[in-house]
Parts: sequence; structure tokens; C-alpha cells
Amino acid sequence: MIDSALIQKLREIVGTGNVLTSKVNLVTYGYDATADVPQGRPDVIVMPTTAEQVQQVVNLARRNGVAIYSRGAGTNLSGGTIPVEKGIVLSLQKMNKIVEVDAENLTAVVQPGVIIQELNNAAAKHGLMYPPDPGTVTTATMGGSVAENSGGLRGLKYGVTKHYVMGMEVVLANGDRVRFGGKTVKNVTAYDFSNLFVGSEGTLGIIVEITCKLLPAPKYRRAMLATYKSVSDAGNTVSAIIKAQVIPATLEILDNMTIRTVEDFAHVGLPVEAEALLLIEVDGMAEEVVAREAEAVVRCVNENHGNLRVANSDAERDALWAARRAALPALASLNNTVVLEDATVPRSHITDMLLELRAIATKYKLTMGTFGHAGDGNLHPTILADKNNKDEMDRVHHAVDEIFAAALRFGGTLSGEHGIGIAKMKYLGNEIGETGLDLMRTLKNALDPAHMFNPGKLVPFPKKEEAEVSHAR
Amino acid sequence: MIDSALIQKLREIVGTGNVLTSKVNLVTYGYDATADVPQGRPDVIVMPTTAEQVQQVVNLARRNGVAIYSRGAGTNLSGGTIPVEKGIVLSLQKMNKIVEVDAENLTAVVQPGVIIQELNNAAAKHGLMYPPDPGTVTTATMGGSVAENSGGLRGLKYGVTKHYVMGMEVVLANGDRVRFGGKTVKNVTAYDFSNLFVGSEGTLGIIVEITCKLLPAPKYRRAMLATYKSVSDAGNTVSAIIKAQVIPATLEILDNMTIRTVEDFAHVGLPVEAEALLLIEVDGMAEEVVAREAEAVVRCVNENHGNLRVANSDAERDALWAARRAALPALASLNNTVVLEDATVPRSHITDMLLELRAIATKYKLTMGTFGHAGDGNLHPTILADKNNKDEMDRVHHAVDEIFAAALRFGGTLSGEHGIGIAKMKYLGNEIGETGLDLMRTLKNALDPAHMFNPGKLVPFPKKEEAEVSHAR
Repeated sequence: MIDSALIQKLREIVGTGNVLTSKVNLVTYGYDATADVPQGRPDVIVMPTTAEQVQQVVNLARRNGVAIYSRGAGTNLSGGTIPVEKGIVLSLQKMNKIVEVDAENLTAVVQPGVIIQELNNAAAKHGLMYPPDPGTVTTATMGGSVAENSGGLRGLKYGVTKHYVMGMEVVLANGDRVRFGGKTVKNVTAYDFSNLFVGSEGTLGIIVEITCKLLPAPKYRRAMLATYKSVSDAGNTVSAIIKAQVIPATLEILDNMTIRTVEDFAHVGLPVEAEALLLIEVDGMAEEVVAREAEAVVRCVNENHGNLRVANSDAERDALWAARRAALPALASLNNTVVLEDATVPRSHITDMLLELRAIATKYKLTMGTFGHAGDGNLHPTILADKNNKDEMDRVHHAVDEIFAAALRFGGTLSGEHGIGIAKMKYLGNEIGETGLDLMRTLKNALDPAHMFNPGKLVPFPKKEEAEVSHAR
Repeated sequence: MIDSALIQKLREIVGTGNVLTSKVNLVTYGYDATADVPQGRPDVIVMPTTAEQVQQVVNLARRNGVAIYSRGAGTNLSGGTIPVEKGIVLSLQKMNKIVEVDAENLTAVVQPGVIIQELNNAAAKHGLMYPPDPGTVTTATMGGSVAENSGGLRGLKYGVTKHYVMGMEVVLANGDRVRFGGKTVKNVTAYDFSNLFVGSEGTLGIIVEITCKLLPAPKYRRAMLATYKSVSDAGNTVSAIIKAQVIPATLEILDNMTIRTVEDFAHVGLPVEAEALLLIEVDGMAEEVVAREAEAVVRCVNENHGNLRVANSDAERDALWAARRAALPALASLNNTVVLEDATVPRSHITDMLLELRAIATKYKLTMGTFGHAGDGNLHPTILADKNNKDEMDRVHHAVDEIFAAALRFGGTLSGEHGIGIAKMKYLGNEIGETGLDLMRTLKNALDPAHMFNPGKLVPFPKKEEAEVSHAR
């Protein structure tokens, strides 16, 4: 338990101004961006400014049997940062230095609290970019993004966060600070702990520094909008583009529900009668290659009965992307509860999944818009509901069950980019089986035997075992 | 211990023809491609043909306290497959089916015994390629390559094995068979076990199936040879090319010693008086881009006093690459012991490292040629020695100590692509520290508590602890 003596010790470690205990803070840090999950209420929030302070907080917490919930900007969508038990919320937002941008080695070293966009701004001065591009790129932190293995709009061509993490420094449950990997492109020294911590959702340790890879920023790009009278035509266009061996930087889909809502919300001139639209951007270092890829895209759109509009200026391009980025806030404005999923299928099954999602919405009489990263099979079916309407919320839960079942049936996965957190734990066994769950538990128990780090997330333990460990802690 | 009853049980599991016990086989499977490491002598070699058989062998071994050394083609260069204790060598070479090439999703599913080049041949039918390209691409297996996280000649532009592994099926120490990841580009469900098993050198489980990513094969390429009167000029050319934001598919260096040896060996017309040469290949999907990148390379070579030759035909290109691939066999023909290292530095320190290697060779009066993947900082200093000359071998060992110390001093790593195996275990703490070693042990003990899988490799245990675990096993 956390008493005032322990809070005093935390103040001595991180400084009085970096310990928050007011009710408004305790409530605020009990939330993240996820709807329809239980909220928490921590005992205290601490904001360390150095790795040494993180170690001291971890040691103090371990000795006192207190849980630690590490946290960046709290933009995650699986309840990953919610303090489900009492304990310490450890915010890394004040460890926000860009330690280095090394243009010669195409690497950067950052503290976990750096906002992704800030790294991009620093890299841009050298003609470089950090490709992972979650929707929250202007607010999410690098630490949170690495802990969640963020995906985003550029996953198809550029991959996801794990493809850009080269090394890191981590504080472990025993208080040790360990450094893995580094600036070399090749490194097979030791187990690949960096990649293990990517996507581990704060359950294995606390990331206090990240070494990441940068790429030369593309010099040319072409954005296009294709509208369709049928969802299948849109899905088939996606498959045709990949088959033509064109890999767009972004290949996004919006369904009719999303189109209408965005248009109502943002008035950007979208065709509200379209059943689906694709937003496609090709990019590269050579103008003629980008032009040729754009031509191939045009052919695929035409062959699949799409109606094409090309952005002829940066302003037009920005308007198209503003429409896409408005999808979530626009949908969210419709009701008090936005259940945003990220079930993901192999891209060859995009059309199947789109049709399935529509059938599920109809079956459960739900308001559901679907948008997302069609190019990598990562769709965001988004259900709008009223959390005060119990019958509707029951139907939402049944629909979500069916969405995940469908994703797995098509050879896909529960989560493309949002993580398991608390929101998807109950489905985890359906994908990785009881043997997979056992292995998860083995790993968690080995690295964090007292379940001090982000307990109740990602790794499902039988209630009894969880209670015993928690008691011992 | 393995007695005849246990060998009989192995015969029942995998079939009599798939159990080898003759002396010639026991000796042969006691080796891999690594020089200057102790050889082993297993009790028996088994060659399962199905994942179920692998599970049964693992269960039998566990119950009888026997070690298992899984093995592909044995091409590794860190002693990773050598059976240092008695036990079972488990060869995956008969599990060699390409299960699927899925052109629509740009993925392949293979069994571990598939030769890398065979996967490339199958992918080529669809205009695709599997980019990881170790020197042994025509003999090494996918399973061995994944277990070692192979790098190779294309690492600079295309990355290494871990960037292409999307999922796998593994048999664990408890006999469980677990499947992780899959065909979706994005997947954040569960810990990233696939990446954990990549590069784990057979110490955590046995990989029985691999799902990997393919890429559209580049349509155009241009190969060039640049020769230099000074090693620094060659190193500076490498930095200049990267700074110009041209990322060649391959960017290889050979020093004078290697050039002369290759020319003596293969008579391909290399300039034997050059202090260093670079072999550079740019590739891509568009002819004009490849041409433009080649022009940028030419400028960098000229500005750094290099003398350029461009391959004007496929035959000329193939001759250039034959010269590079002859480097190791040519050097190996000079003496009975070839100590081939893979110390790796950030590419900005390539010149420093090349000069340091030369100084080390001079200091210890050793015959050393250096070649390797200059573009990603991954050099192969190669010492030729006579294993019967104790004084010379002592100097070799001192030189190797200094090579690794230099790599770490320049912010590099002990191993870029060959792995730790038994050859580099004693240096591991210098890179990851005692806290890193502890974490290695924690992970190994959690997943393989009896140290059944490839004992004595990668993870250094105090002798006493190792003996106790081995006794318990």
C-alpha cells in the first residue's frame, strides 16, 4: 500500500513538483483514450526526469509491493495504461530530450517522452524521417509508441515501429538498467531484447532510452482519391494495386458511413453517395517513378470501376488527408461511446472482411463505420453506441466477439496496432492457444515475478494466481 | 545418458533410416563451419520429417535428461551447432518443404530445412525475392538462418533475416507446439515471440515452420568496381555514398591482402596493387532511378580518388560478384585455420575500424585479410594461421580480443551476423554487462529450465550452475 511516508520518499526521488496526488490528477491519469473499459484510480503520479530516478522508483515500488503503470501521452486504444489496481502511475513525459540525430548513421537516440512528431521535425532538418505514423503522431510519445509497437498510415510500405527500433535502455523489475542493441544495422549479440520490449505494453520493464532508425525522406509524392459504388470494387482495387507490385506509402479506406459522417463534420467535399473511397498516396525519391506508380494505381482504379480524383497541389493533398484524419473524431462526435477495433486480416481478405463487418453491423442493428489501413489489412471498424443503453452495449459486445472471430477465420489477428491491453485479453487464447498463453505467463513471471509492471494487462492469469502474486507483492 | 533402448525409441519416432549412429556420422555432425572451436561428438543424429516427430523427440529427450542440438546445414561461423556435451543432434534437413508462396500477400511459408536459395527460386517465379542473402545462400537452411538471424550482402538496403520473419511455429522445452504471428503486416497480439526466436541460436526451442515476407524483386541493377590506393579513401567513399542518400543493395570492401589472394585463386583480373576495392551494386524498379543512383556513386568514388569500372553486361557483373564470393574460400586456401570474425561498427567508423584492423595484424605479425559488408559496418577480418603453431595461435587469440575491444570502442557490436555461439561467449559481458548477462540467464532458465536446447551456447552460465542444471537434466 502507498502511505504518506512512501509518497514522501517518491518526492525525495523525483522532486516535490514531480509528484501529483490531487484528486483531479488521480482521476485524469485513471483514463486513456480507450472507450468501454474500466477506469482506474492510482494512488500517486510520479514524473521522473532521469533514468536513475526511474530505477529508484522501481526499487522503492518493488520493496513496498506496489504496482507501477508506466505511461506516455495515454493515447493508446486498448486500455493499456489504465491503473486497474491502486499504485504508481509513472509518466515518462518529462524525459523528453532528443539526445541525438546522427545523419551519417541514419539513427536517432531519444528519451521516451519525446513526441513522435518532434523527432520527425528534428530528422527533417537532415532530410530524414522516422516512418512509423500512428494517427496520434502529434501527441503520442516515442516510449508509448515503442511499448505498443504502433503501426499507422504508412505500415504498408514502411513497416511498423518494431522495424525502426535498433536498441534501447530499459529498467528491469530488479532495478537493473540494461542496454541492448545500438547503432549498427546488423547486431546478433545476445537475445533480441529490444524487439521483445517493443510491443510488451509496459509489462516487462520501463523503457528509458530508444535508439531508432531513420530513413531518407521521400522527395516526391502523389495523392489520389478513388470513389466506388461497391465495397467489393474498393477491396479489389487494393488487391490489384499490390498485385501490380506497386507499394503505396498509404492506402486507406473509408466506408459510406464514415464518408457521410466526415463530410457532415468537416465539409471537405467528399461524395456522400459513394459506398467506399480509397485514399492512396505513392511516394519516392524519383519523380518519374512516382509518376509511373501513380499511373499504375489509376489503371487499377479504372479496372475496378472507381472514380478517380488526383490531388494537383499540396493544398488539395492536405485536404484529402485532413478528411482521413477526421474519420475518428467525426465518428466520435456521433455518440458518447466509440468502440474502435483494429482486427487485421491478410490483405487478400480485405473484401471478405469488409463485407463481413457490414453483415455484423446489420445483424446487431449497430451504427458502425469502417475505415483504416486497407493496404496492410488493418481495418478499424468503429461502433458508435450509448454506454447508458445496456441492450445496445450488449449488442456491441456480441458484435465485437464476432469481429474478432471473423479476423481469425480469415487468417488474421486480434490486433494489428492497438495492442491487447485489457480490452482484448479475453480473446487472446483464441489466437495463440493455451500453449501460447502459458508461454506468455512464463515470460512475464520470469522478468516480472511480482507482476509489478502494468499488472492486469496483456498476459491473462487465472484470477487466483493473479491474486496470490499481487498479495505477495 | 543415451543407451540403445533410447536409440530404439528414437527409431520408432522418426523411422530407422532417419537415425544415424555410425562413427563417420558422429564425427561429421560434431563439426560446423567454425574454425578454432572445440569439436563435439553426439550420441546420435535424428532427422525428423514432421513437427509431431520433433515434439516426440523433445519429450523423450526431456524425460531422459538428454541435450538436443538442432541443426540445419551447419554453415554457421560461431560454433553454434557443435554438440559440446553428448546428446542428440536434431537435423531439420528433411523437413524441407516450401509449404506456400502467397504472391497476393507477399508471403511464404516454409519448413526449416528449406535451402534459402530454393525459396528464392520459388519466389522468383512470381517476380518476388526473399532478400536476406548470407554468403552461404545456396547451402544454408531457412531454419538455421532464422535461428542465427543471418545478415549477408544485402543488409544495408534490405535489412537482415529478422526483418522478414512474420511468424513461426516452435516446439518448446515442455513439448508444446506454439504458433506466433502470421501473414498480416501488422500484428501486435502477444509478446513478439517470433522475433525472440530469431537469433536465439537454438537455445529456446526448435523452429518447425516459418512464415516470411517476400518483396518484389528489383528489375534493374548496376554493378561497379572501385579501386583505391588508400584504405581511408575507400572507407570515406562508403560514408559519402550514404551521405548522398543513396542506399546501394550491396557495398562490399576487399583489402589488398584479400584482393591478391582472390586474384591468385580465381584469376578474375583484379588489380593486385590496389590497397582496397569496393564492389557496389545499386538496384531498383525503375531504370532511370538506378542510373541516377549509379551516377551519384560515380561522383562519390571520383571525389575520393577511386578508380572506377562499371559492369556493362550480366557476365561482367557476375565476374565481379564471383570475385567477392571467392574471398573466403580463397583466403581459406592459404592455411589450415581460418579465423573469420564479424565485428561490426556504425558505418561512420568504417575507416577507423579498417585502420585499426591493419594495426592489430601488424602488432601481432599475423596474416589477416579483411573483406565484408562495408555499407552496414559489418567487416570480416580473417586471420590465416596454422593451428599446430601454438605461438601463432596465441597471437591470433590476442588479436581477436583486440578486434572485439575496438568494435565496442567505436560503438559497435561483437557480432553483426555470425552469432555468439561458443566462439564469442567470453566477450558477451563486455557488450551487455553483468546485468545483460543476468537477463539472458533469466530468459534461458524460464524457457528451457533444464538447459536441454543447445547447452553451452550463447548464454554464459557459471560453470557450477551449468553443471548442476546438466546433472538435474
